[in-house]
Amino acid sequence: MIIIGIDPGIAITGYGIISTKKAKHLRQDRNEKPKVIDFGCIITNKSDSMGERLKIIHQQVNILIEKHKPDVVSIESLYFFKNLKTAIPVSQAKGVILLSAAKSNISICEFTPLQVKMTVVGFGKAEKRQVQEMTKQLLDLSSFNLKEKNRKKDDAFDALGIALCAFLKDFTL
Amino acid sequence: MIIIGIDPGIAITGYGIISTKKAKHLRQDRNEKPKVIDFGCIITNKSDSMGERLKIIHQQVNILIEKHKPDVVSIESLYFFKNLKTAIPVSQAKGVILLSAAKSNISICEFTPLQVKMTVVGFGKAEKRQVQEMTKQLLDLSSFNLKEKNRKKDDAFDALGIALCAFLKDFTL
Repeated sequence: MIIIGIDPGIAITGYGIISTKKAKHLRQDRNEKPKVIDFGCIITNKSDSMGERLKIIHQQVNILIEKHKPDVVSIESLYFFKNLKTAIPVSQAKGVILLSAAKSNISICEFTPLQVKMTVVGFGKAEKRQVQEMTKQLLDLSSFNLKEKNRKKDDAFDALGIALCAFLKDFTL
Repeated sequence: MIIIGIDPGIAITGYGIISTKKAKHLRQDRNEKPKVIDFGCIITNKSDSMGERLKIIHQQVNILIEKHKPDVVSIESLYFFKNLKTAIPVSQAKGVILLSAAKSNISICEFTPLQVKMTVVGFGKAEKRQVQEMTKQLLDLSSFNLKEKNRKKDDAFDALGIALCAFLKDFTL
């Protein structure tokens, strides 16, 4: 099974793609370590219009889906925001990402930040940094050049954490 | 010039299409009464997934754009919400609508509810009902069968008001 994790954002959308031997709807081998296929960020330019930025995000997600043919899109649930100014553009970005998934008939898993923390770290009050560190530990990222453009961004690791959450969820959710 | 006004929503997206002699970027004749081409609602089913509902909205807006070839998409700016539970799905719907406009290279005008009230009624504290009544007065809707399915919805009149706002804006904004 191929899982694409997505951390939506209008300026930076992180993505992380993992592959597991686990078949959809079946419990996976508890000892299996999923393989990282790809991860990175879709970056849009602040000087472009909102429509143009959404088009880029939608097209780039379509390209990732076309290339990796994921079985599941795992994405963060947006329930809580510090302010509406963030909620609106992030939700607009998420809208075009959900559209990409729906157009390709791919199942969508949604996880709240709390669920990601609980599932990946095992502790609901874990820091963002702890989730990223645990994600790096659980996935072998050594074969990737982390200095490569768009690779070092936190958002890509967050997306891998969200993908991992869909992989691990049978045990913990 | 053809203007499509859109009032985004996940359950009901209102649309209203008007035609004016005014050329893009030129001031229109102050006495001109724009002609209503079409108006109605895109309705999605609560039992469908969010992705499916966004797909329907996106596809239906694409069909309207393809059919009427608007020069401008006029849409409500989402700056303020009573609660986040509304803000998120409405923003997701708006995201796929902006995507439709961007894919067809159509200019986007955004108006806050205050701007719509000021422009259509001339009074920022106007009630929603007053905006709708003024919209009906300013546009001759008598040739349309208001009993037709999806026609009587408030959201369609709201969308016509937003379209009218793009038509009137040279005078008042």
